[in-house]
Amino acid sequence: MQIEIWSDVKCPWCFVGKRRFETALAGFEHRDQVTVTWKSFQLDPDLPDHYDGTEQQYLAERKGISEDRIREMWDSLSASAAGEGLNFRFEDVVVGNSFTAHRFLHLAKSQGLGDAAKEAILSAHFEQGKDTSDTDFLVELGQKIGLTEQDVRATLDTDRFADDVHHDIAEARALGISGVPFFVIDRKYGISGAQPADLFAEALTTAWQEANPLTLVSPAGSAAASADGEACGPEGCN
Amino acid sequence: MQIEIWSDVKCPWCFVGKRRFETALAGFEHRDQVTVTWKSFQLDPDLPDHYDGTEQQYLAERKGISEDRIREMWDSLSASAAGEGLNFRFEDVVVGNSFTAHRFLHLAKSQGLGDAAKEAILSAHFEQGKDTSDTDFLVELGQKIGLTEQDVRATLDTDRFADDVHHDIAEARALGISGVPFFVIDRKYGISGAQPADLFAEALTTAWQEANPLTLVSPAGSAAASADGEACGPEGCN
Repeated sequence: MQIEIWSDVKCPWCFVGKRRFETALAGFEHRDQVTVTWKSFQLDPDLPDHYDGTEQQYLAERKGISEDRIREMWDSLSASAAGEGLNFRFEDVVVGNSFTAHRFLHLAKSQGLGDAAKEAILSAHFEQGKDTSDTDFLVELGQKIGLTEQDVRATLDTDRFADDVHHDIAEARALGISGVPFFVIDRKYGISGAQPADLFAEALTTAWQEANPLTLVSPAGSAAASADGEACGPEGCN
Repeated sequence: MQIEIWSDVKCPWCFVGKRRFETALAGFEHRDQVTVTWKSFQLDPDLPDHYDGTEQQYLAERKGISEDRIREMWDSLSASAAGEGLNFRFEDVVVGNSFTAHRFLHLAKSQGLGDAAKEAILSAHFEQGKDTSDTDFLVELGQKIGLTEQDVRATLDTDRFADDVHHDIAEARALGISGVPFFVIDRKYGISGAQPADLFAEALTTAWQEANPLTLVSPAGSAAASADGEACGPEGCN
């Protein structure tokens, strides 16, 4: 079963949603037959690489959100995050464009390290106050998860994987995705937002059952039309 | 998914475009649920059945194209054709009105042989220097793809399928199609010209996704409007 998750690096609900999804997946019977693919999305593609101000200034200046409302949002988000074992430190968040981070994530994905990279970069951004647009920091982070310094620099010093990021964003648009996190199962079911783990679990089961319907056992040699045995239905008994 | 392709017999890009489209279709996940219908178009309906001259003379005399420009066009077209495994021989092309060929194609289509006929007639015209306006040749060609001599002659000796050809051309006009090849997906998306296979692939995916939208999974009892979980969008995080 194919699960694609569109997500931005600078999206707190994406980290919370990742945990809730992981909880559901851990309890899913057929988890060893599930492939998870992280897809890029940008909430604010117009941000400069390095925004000169705090997250609070960014939200106030660029999104016009009041100080009270920001405090309220952060409290609520931090509480939800804490409920999933995450320790958000919004005051330390470094604001900047996530494009470089997405290219880094695609590099990691190309080496089978997509999930490790996603986890590390979300934690760096929300829990550790790191600058995830910074090449030197990403080199360091990459080495921790198994990438070489050479590969990370060769990617970030060029425009490698830029097309992949754009491709993911175009796909999101085609699927009608305008916010993240957004989970897609087998390109059939969509789950918008950091829903409760129970809902992910239910969706996994539904999609699995649909992809693996019961095989009807019928008497040898019977035509498909006669696969039903003697039975009763709404119209009576055959 | 319904794909209609407007195309003329005497149109080199139609043959190249056919190959590129086929490449995309072969790689398309849901190709077994795609129906392709060939539609008639005439680039030059005023041509006599048999033009007394070479393709080069035709282009020079009737279209006013210089010899140098013709050579340039042919070189470029032949190179593109070769890139798709086609061997164009413009020097051997037999010039004439394509109306008879289109009636032949409609006969083949009425017997489920539309694609085989289209392929055979394009190859005959561009690769083999055959006269695709000639009844005896079309009888021979028809037999190769599974038509009977009787059906081909009964069609070409009368005006059978003439209305179908006119109907296709009128439809093209109604859709705003003025050049071929022109590909239409579900009467919704139009692709003009022999685009790269990648573009066809993308259009197939987009159209499919639109015809088969994601089913949004939302918590039991929630109103459709609240199907979104906690998420971040361009305006911030809810």
